[in-house]
Amino acid sequence: MTNYSNKIPLVVIVGGGFGGIELAKRLRNKPVQILMLDRHNYHTFQPLLYQVATAGLEADSIAFPLRKIFKGQQNFTFRMTELKKIIPSQRVLDTTIGPINYDYLVIATGSNTNFFGQQEVEHFAMPMKTIPEALNLRSLLLQNLEEALIESDPVRKSALLHFVIVGGGPTGVELSGALAELRMHILPTDYPELSIQQVHIYLIEGSSKLLGTMSEQASSESERFLKKMGVKVYTDARVEGYDGATIRLSTGETIHTQNVIWSAGIKGAVPEGIPEIGIARGNRIKVDTYNRVEGLENIFAIGDVAAMTTDKYPNGHPCVAPVAIQQGKMLAANLLKLLRGKPLDGFIYFDKGSMATVGRNKAVVDIGRIRFQGIFAWFVWMFVHLMSLVGFRNKVVTFVNWMWSYFSYDRGTRLIIRPFSRTSRTEDTSAK
Amino acid sequence: MTNYSNKIPLVVIVGGGFGGIELAKRLRNKPVQILMLDRHNYHTFQPLLYQVATAGLEADSIAFPLRKIFKGQQNFTFRMTELKKIIPSQRVLDTTIGPINYDYLVIATGSNTNFFGQQEVEHFAMPMKTIPEALNLRSLLLQNLEEALIESDPVRKSALLHFVIVGGGPTGVELSGALAELRMHILPTDYPELSIQQVHIYLIEGSSKLLGTMSEQASSESERFLKKMGVKVYTDARVEGYDGATIRLSTGETIHTQNVIWSAGIKGAVPEGIPEIGIARGNRIKVDTYNRVEGLENIFAIGDVAAMTTDKYPNGHPCVAPVAIQQGKMLAANLLKLLRGKPLDGFIYFDKGSMATVGRNKAVVDIGRIRFQGIFAWFVWMFVHLMSLVGFRNKVVTFVNWMWSYFSYDRGTRLIIRPFSRTSRTEDTSAK
Repeated sequence: MTNYSNKIPLVVIVGGGFGGIELAKRLRNKPVQILMLDRHNYHTFQPLLYQVATAGLEADSIAFPLRKIFKGQQNFTFRMTELKKIIPSQRVLDTTIGPINYDYLVIATGSNTNFFGQQEVEHFAMPMKTIPEALNLRSLLLQNLEEALIESDPVRKSALLHFVIVGGGPTGVELSGALAELRMHILPTDYPELSIQQVHIYLIEGSSKLLGTMSEQASSESERFLKKMGVKVYTDARVEGYDGATIRLSTGETIHTQNVIWSAGIKGAVPEGIPEIGIARGNRIKVDTYNRVEGLENIFAIGDVAAMTTDKYPNGHPCVAPVAIQQGKMLAANLLKLLRGKPLDGFIYFDKGSMATVGRNKAVVDIGRIRFQGIFAWFVWMFVHLMSLVGFRNKVVTFVNWMWSYFSYDRGTRLIIRPFSRTSRTEDTSAK
Repeated sequence: MTNYSNKIPLVVIVGGGFGGIELAKRLRNKPVQILMLDRHNYHTFQPLLYQVATAGLEADSIAFPLRKIFKGQQNFTFRMTELKKIIPSQRVLDTTIGPINYDYLVIATGSNTNFFGQQEVEHFAMPMKTIPEALNLRSLLLQNLEEALIESDPVRKSALLHFVIVGGGPTGVELSGALAELRMHILPTDYPELSIQQVHIYLIEGSSKLLGTMSEQASSESERFLKKMGVKVYTDARVEGYDGATIRLSTGETIHTQNVIWSAGIKGAVPEGIPEIGIARGNRIKVDTYNRVEGLENIFAIGDVAAMTTDKYPNGHPCVAPVAIQQGKMLAANLLKLLRGKPLDGFIYFDKGSMATVGRNKAVVDIGRIRFQGIFAWFVWMFVHLMSLVGFRNKVVTFVNWMWSYFSYDRGTRLIIRPFSRTSRTEDTSAK
């Protein structure tokens, strides 16, 4: 077993997402040793994944090497590996690079796509939670346009040109907006042989409104924006099945399509070794107000994977970056208090508001009771996302790309670098 | 069979490289119909592939969607497909999207890596002629650094940290220079646990000097630059074998290494259907001074895949972009003359000179009898390459990246987006 600490306590953080990074940064120059584990060597800025999938940004604009974030931090070590199992009784992690011991363990593994047990849908629909998945999605969309050009059968051709996004949360709204812009501005120049009338974009939402967690104004305005951009919005419609050719809705309708993107749900990415009894709704780990995993010693969970229930959030906090960041910050302080034998502080989420972008000059923002939509909201959205990107270079490159797209109505990177095939997807998923 | 022309002659161009693009552009608004075929939907700026492989640039900076290059060109059609076979007797191409007829065929398929029949080397060494290959190479290099961190066996550890580049042409020189910079500037901050003394970069060249096609000054200066940067340069050394763990040189020396990059040779990418008798040295298609393929009617070949022998170039012209571009330009004019029944012009290569970069402030340039090396050569190299990139956005993004690297001594994109494995490589190669 590799020994990563000497005398001082070793904090092992599993996951280099928003929560894990915040925690490790806050422990800089503190009397602990940090070991971060992640299956990728980079941090993914998930809020902009949909732009990678729709060829608006290249992957390197929203990914940042984890080693680089912590360069010069003396008490930080990184290992690229996958956690196989936690063995709490021995304070040991079983990983793909061998066993690793810990004094304190922080589970910050985030969430995965939730297909709610619909295996057929899971096989044929495209998820979009990681960079390889977003790149696969981009390849598939572009490949299907290429294939549509040479398809003579009208039914098969229309299936290649129908794009169905399932789930009307922020990801689904942003994705369908971005596809609508591709359809309006790119299709006519890149594929003059295809008619824009042949291309249809559908957004399917199970509840009665889009952006369910946001205000009424945000919901109705985003729907209005999308419809104006040519997206067919179906609310109160659930997916009953998808066999790779036809998607069946609870309303009785069917759509022929080769392009189904699944953004309808997530579930906590719980590692093996957490007792069944500690798992809450949505496959999240039950934690107390200090983010301690119930019933286990010296193990914490933060962010999407943690279910901390309060009066205000009886089903746990929302799975968004600010919760993960604030819990990471709080846990850093609490770990230091724990070491000094001081009482811990409980977590209180400070909700700064939420926003979603639909397209050019079109976004919706809720900040407390303040709600606004349209061009100013769009500038706020851009500013907040640009500033949140890790690293100066990523900010500059993303800014150049956005300005370029804005003035030219163009998107940069319609490249099929790695062709997508279902057989290869299985491998990517296992390897990622 | 899809009929892509009506009355006017159909020119089918196979390959969207420098030659194919130049030809199609020059035929804009001319009385011909153009159909371009390529297995990728983008043009690759090959001179900067090594920067993608060494994490200096992201793939989208050096790739450009072919459809976008020709947007608005009425007589241009693009199909993403792979040519399986030419059937000259029927004027038909057999492709992965079915048969395609042609009136004039231009083979502009470029070249592939040449392992000179060494199958063992081909299996274990990494080629770098396409973007997927460059990305695989990058993933492998970064993965091996990660693996070195956890390897306890000293021999296996050193093999992970030895980087061997075979072939001292421009690609080999530029690649070893870029790796030397990674070693000097990135390794100490990203991998503080590894000592720079453990990492060795070898450049193996079979002849007596580097950059054999350039001037004596360029050869000796580039060697001096590389040695100063810590690269071990072996001239007069050929690779006799590589079993995935140890490379054996003709000098009797052996190097333990998991990282062998092959830039020692190329061969023409000749499609099936060209008679054996028409193939010259280096697997190139014999053409006359008008780029007509010998013995075949209405078939032309340009660029790397074409062997046009002259007194000055008894073995064919060099496999460089300017030759392909000039042949594409000339062929466009000749095709129009052919249609009008006018006499054709023979090809004369105008050699503008050649250059290679070794690293920061270090490049070598030969322009006719004018030779210079060092910082001014480096600025010339940067300027020429920046200006040659297709598209304004690519120029800006590359410029930002280069400026950023220059002032920060940093490289942006050390991301293992798709982990490399030998099994997946076979698939990538077949699918690309």
